Amino acid sequence: MIQKLISKIEQNNAPIVVGLDPMLSYIPKHVLEKAYAEFGETLEGAAEAIWQFNKAIVDTTYDLIPAVKPQIAMYEQFGIPGMIAFKKTVDYCKEKDLVVIGDIKRGDIGSTSAAYATGHLGKVTVGSKSFYGFDEDFVTVNPYLGSDGITPFLDVCKEENKGLFILVKTSNPSSGEFQDQLIDGKPLYELVGKKVAEWGEMCMGEKYSYIGAVVGATYPEMGKVLRKLMPKTYILVPGYGAQGGKASDLAPYFNEDGLGAIINSSRGIIAAYKQSAYESFGAANFADASRQAVIDMREDINQALSHKE
Amino acid sequence: MIQKLISKIEQNNAPIVVGLDPMLSYIPKHVLEKAYAEFGETLEGAAEAIWQFNKAIVDTTYDLIPAVKPQIAMYEQFGIPGMIAFKKTVDYCKEKDLVVIGDIKRGDIGSTSAAYATGHLGKVTVGSKSFYGFDEDFVTVNPYLGSDGITPFLDVCKEENKGLFILVKTSNPSSGEFQDQLIDGKPLYELVGKKVAEWGEMCMGEKYSYIGAVVGATYPEMGKVLRKLMPKTYILVPGYGAQGGKASDLAPYFNEDGLGAIINSSRGIIAAYKQSAYESFGAANFADASRQAVIDMREDINQALSHKE
Repeated sequence: MIQKLISKIEQNNAPIVVGLDPMLSYIPKHVLEKAYAEFGETLEGAAEAIWQFNKAIVDTTYDLIPAVKPQIAMYEQFGIPGMIAFKKTVDYCKEKDLVVIGDIKRGDIGSTSAAYATGHLGKVTVGSKSFYGFDEDFVTVNPYLGSDGITPFLDVCKEENKGLFILVKTSNPSSGEFQDQLIDGKPLYELVGKKVAEWGEMCMGEKYSYIGAVVGATYPEMGKVLRKLMPKTYILVPGYGAQGGKASDLAPYFNEDGLGAIINSSRGIIAAYKQSAYESFGAANFADASRQAVIDMREDINQALSHKE
Repeated sequence: MIQKLISKIEQNNAPIVVGLDPMLSYIPKHVLEKAYAEFGETLEGAAEAIWQFNKAIVDTTYDLIPAVKPQIAMYEQFGIPGMIAFKKTVDYCKEKDLVVIGDIKRGDIGSTSAAYATGHLGKVTVGSKSFYGFDEDFVTVNPYLGSDGITPFLDVCKEENKGLFILVKTSNPSSGEFQDQLIDGKPLYELVGKKVAEWGEMCMGEKYSYIGAVVGATYPEMGKVLRKLMPKTYILVPGYGAQGGKASDLAPYFNEDGLGAIINSSRGIIAAYKQSAYESFGAANFADASRQAVIDMREDINQALSHKE
């Protein structure tokens, strides 16, 4: 699956992933009203609005982008109907041949981690049959519990030719509280990064491992160090745009081959029509605004990368 | 909600929580066959078997125990039907007046953490209405992302009078890989423990905070240190029984008042009929075996605690 991700990045000349993290406040009134008219102001109504919103954005951007990253929390908050909207979104994006990174940040131990891995990447056995639960291509994983939490995911990834992005250094202001603490003079995130590189060695594609890392765009100096520490690791980079990460900060996350990183933008794309730069599209054409925001993001990043060379 | 948990622990004289972590291999053949006959060997069939299995165990144990801890991964692996079984289990346990600890180990940042908190503990707003998503009483949370990940949960807990158990030192063999690393001479789990105590100060019940910690039974020496570091923190202790934690190791997790800890057993209770000690019950009476296992666990723990005094 890392090969597919890389070839789609190259084909689109766009190392970008669109974060499908819908909040009801992002969804235009006409989409909400239509969903509520059919299902009422209910969890089902909210889930329908989210699904229609996602579908419109995917329909207008899928030819430009390699991947999407639905954030499961934004669906899970609407209970079962929300989870159904998540699953529909995953399935639809796969139909459109997009690589789907489930941003689930799960992490547990032993048989419990195995259950998460099975549910999101693999097949669960029921009697003589087996079924995919949510069936993403990649998922994000939390490393706090150590190898016992990661190994069951690696096993499923090998079997299914799928992948992970393991949290190393997150983009938020307080990420340093634990992640930056010094251990023998090196921050914890470097120790985690080294482990990610080790786990990755066991799961190699051609040039890159299918075990990736998450490193926030908001910490470019740390990104530089981690890039060197994990040379064969694909880095998923959140925090561009809305969280304050600039394109000029992104160069250190890439390798000399122009690969090795994929930049996420969520709000900046899916709620583009709410920004002054795109307000001329109007709420009626929210998905066209998202398309333009993808084009501009691609340009912004490629410009920054060309300055690197 | 911490008051309810404590009063139910005192009332039952049982600081124990039953982990509802059903695996299909735990479920007796007659339960599976009935579910498959109705729904086929499908995700729905598996979910029905899990639900019937849980219901039988809850029906035979609810009068002895204060709380249950369904492990969401075991449901999530069966996709949407599994999530529906999780929700049915949560609702049924609450009907039986049990305190429900959702073992979800979620953790993200900002609006995403807020969405998890809303979905599992709070109410989500849809237009002019609001709804509970999964509606557990407590959830487990992963601290790796720092305060930005925890604060949104604290806000919902205050509003809803609910609580958390934050991972501090987990019960698995490799938990030390990151959690035991020394920072200024102290292990990371102590730093996390101190933060949990700080967060807990902001969310006090009468004697204990409603922000608790997870500390594995398999590390009693560390439990002793953490007990002192977090005097007002309720400790959820996994790892008793199947994972190797012994009752004699549990005393350090409790305070002088006999409170401050709640011990989880999953497999040891729900799959008791598969153990030699309870095999005389037979698979037909699996739930009665679970009841006896609860009684024995209560006895085992209370004996160990009485030796402490």
